Amino acid sequence: MSSPDSLARLEATIAARRGADPDSSYVAKLNARGLGKIAQKLGEEATETVIAALTQDRKELVGEAADLIFHLMVLLGAKDVPLAEVLAELDRREGTSGIAEKASRPRD
Amino acid sequence: MSSPDSLARLEATIAARRGADPDSSYVAKLNARGLGKIAQKLGEEATETVIAALTQDRKELVGEAADLIFHLMVLLGAKDVPLAEVLAELDRREGTSGIAEKASRPRD
Amino acid sequence: MSSPDSLARLEATIAARRGADPDSSYVAKLNARGLGKIAQKLGEEATETVIAALTQDRKELVGEAADLIFHLMVLLGAKDVPLAEVLAELDRREGTSGIAEKASRPRD
Amino acid sequence: MSSPDSLARLEATIAARRGADPDSSYVAKLNARGLGKIAQKLGEEATETVIAALTQDRKELVGEAADLIFHLMVLLGAKDVPLAEVLAELDRREGTSGIAEKASRPRD
Repeated sequence: MSSPDSLARLEATIAARRGADPDSSYVAKLNARGLGKIAQKLGEEATETVIAALTQDRKELVGEAADLIFHLMVLLGAKDVPLAEVLAELDRREGTSGIAEKASRPRD
Repeated sequence: MSSPDSLARLEATIAARRGADPDSSYVAKLNARGLGKIAQKLGEEATETVIAALTQDRKELVGEAADLIFHLMVLLGAKDVPLAEVLAELDRREGTSGIAEKASRPRD
Repeated sequence: MSSPDSLARLEATIAARRGADPDSSYVAKLNARGLGKIAQKLGEEATETVIAALTQDRKELVGEAADLIFHLMVLLGAKDVPLAEVLAELDRREGTSGIAEKASRPRD
Repeated sequence: MSSPDSLARLEATIAARRGADPDSSYVAKLNARGLGKIAQKLGEEATETVIAALTQDRKELVGEAADLIFHLMVLLGAKDVPLAEVLAELDRREGTSGIAEKASRPRD
């Protein structure tokens, strides 16, 4: 069963594995290969999420969205950005006119 | 202050605004323009997250990651996929050898 | 030595291999896996080109740009769009105020 | 009418406009905003090409593919990589077992 702190647990797991043996941990392997590789994986998963949304069944989309969130969290971890900071930014937008603020943001 | 259920609140807000006036709500506007447009925005935000991670300051990355999560949630909403389902998928992987499972997944 | 018709040759090669044995031809394999897979590869190569431009040496960028063009041509082939049509569109923009037209195009 | 050297002409135009007034030239404007911005546009156009291929009509795909090639050439120009070098790389692969080489390339 999922719960609101699935992401907090995932963040802790990723932090714990970053320094592990790259041969036994996917997170350690990605970090060993560097930020460019992690960023590349994020881009790939975003493309796969787009494609799943447009062409495939719901289950596929769930899996790709999970992959995207997972790799986003690996990227944030590699840059020492806590997820809480990103969530606080989402809260902040929500608070101060929120989505409207996004809508009015200059486009380029 | 952020909390674990920032995302649950965001999900509720997005659901509430989907049917609003596209002239006053960004979420309604995106949904009115269709799934292709929402998917396009997700792809754009992923690219911007990649670039922020590789070139810019930490604050920029926080903002882009927030944009990416926001648009992922708009996309999931448009496909009637609750975030809980994606979190459950992340939990499931974590449970059953978790990240190792991802590592051993065939690449193509 | 390269020449202006490298792309015309590549287009012919891709067309010839589309119907080949997927076990012996990468183009045939991609086509057998469907448009979603080809589109996914295009997205991946674009991300890799972005990353190479921002972080890596010139040689890496040359390789990724070649991968991107290659997969774009596989995608165009799969949709029966001749490269000449895309080049004609580029010519057309160039002709009629060209790049200015792009600049003035509405953003969203 | 298009011809094999549409791209050579486009490359020359892009080179000529790079130093122009950013207020009157889209290419100059992109270059003034920096490599991150150019890379971002490339990523966006790739996403739009993917979406056009999967959901839209042929004409849309032609336009997006033209946008993608255009921005790739702006990116190459900004990094001082001549298109000929990328075409030579495509020729080289074609020459030495070509597409097979790509197929056998290690995946990650």
